[in-house]
Amino acid sequence: MSSTVPSLDKLIEQFEKLPGIGRKSAQRMAFYVLSQPFEKAEQFANAVVTAHKNIRRCSVCCNLSETEICPVCSDVMRDNSTICIVESPRDVMSFERVGEYRGLYHVMHGLISPLDNIGPDAICIKELVARLDSGNVKEAILATGATTEGEATAIYIANKILKPRGIKVSRLSYGIPIGSNLEYADEMTLLRALKDRNEF
Amino acid sequence: MSSTVPSLDKLIEQFEKLPGIGRKSAQRMAFYVLSQPFEKAEQFANAVVTAHKNIRRCSVCCNLSETEICPVCSDVMRDNSTICIVESPRDVMSFERVGEYRGLYHVMHGLISPLDNIGPDAICIKELVARLDSGNVKEAILATGATTEGEATAIYIANKILKPRGIKVSRLSYGIPIGSNLEYADEMTLLRALKDRNEF
Repeated sequence: MSSTVPSLDKLIEQFEKLPGIGRKSAQRMAFYVLSQPFEKAEQFANAVVTAHKNIRRCSVCCNLSETEICPVCSDVMRDNSTICIVESPRDVMSFERVGEYRGLYHVMHGLISPLDNIGPDAICIKELVARLDSGNVKEAILATGATTEGEATAIYIANKILKPRGIKVSRLSYGIPIGSNLEYADEMTLLRALKDRNEF
Repeated sequence: MSSTVPSLDKLIEQFEKLPGIGRKSAQRMAFYVLSQPFEKAEQFANAVVTAHKNIRRCSVCCNLSETEICPVCSDVMRDNSTICIVESPRDVMSFERVGEYRGLYHVMHGLISPLDNIGPDAICIKELVARLDSGNVKEAILATGATTEGEATAIYIANKILKPRGIKVSRLSYGIPIGSNLEYADEMTLLRALKDRNEF
């Protein structure tokens, strides 16, 4: 429904395009923005444009970066012989939040998904190949999600890209999430946790 | 946590300020914006600034408007002797979506809430008084929500503002929502539905 205020309608429409945002939430957001002082709205608008202008992909790992080579890749304290292969920049953020991992990353920007017509060429495979062929990567950790696409991508990268180049490959472990009760684990997770059980 | 991309952090921070948006949703939104072409991001930013610049309050009903007097108040086909008193511009949108009501509105921009230190002066009471004293309003529909604050505001406006001026006052009905089963109605609603029962 359109209100009697065209620029409000346009603003609501823009918020509605955001992922996970329906009409009601978009309205709430628009009214929130209007209730703020003009400078705050301007800051918000500037953040959108500035981020878009400044951010590109790191020429080494394909993660988002404001510089040609991202701070992680250019950090001499990090182990550049190990890369952690992830689906998206969000995953890099998650690992960096944990803070334990000291190697580099490779961001695929997607997963192979034949059903959606996304093949290896649509994700950052060729950048990975170029990197492996020119650099000194010795070990790769496959850190895609525990979904069909995550698994398919991990298998493809391991078998077609990493193993033929003699790179040591590992995969994140699957199982019961820490802090969770068994009753909440689904069958597939339980099955996997049983199959991958470790000596105690 | 701060990533290694300052302008991305700033964008996520801005999205996080929106109502109902946590860290994860803000990240999703930021990545969505970055995944769009630059023109789309610019359109989004422009919508924010333009809406803020263009929108003010209608000098008659206090609803948001791009003009001095909003389209509803300046529509000669509408009955300007009846006003519907609502909490926010969102409520006007809801009524207009229904399309049945042909009178005008008065937007309070808040509700009286002594616990939050919001008294009658903090909402658009004085604009309502000025309007009643200068115009030809004969009837008012109190359409604030069925909450303590909505009720308190309705009682205050009815007793202090409307009735002393001889204006006919009504209130939205309360009861079981249409399409809902009795089993889902809470006790207070059921009690009210029983008390306000109508001859059949």
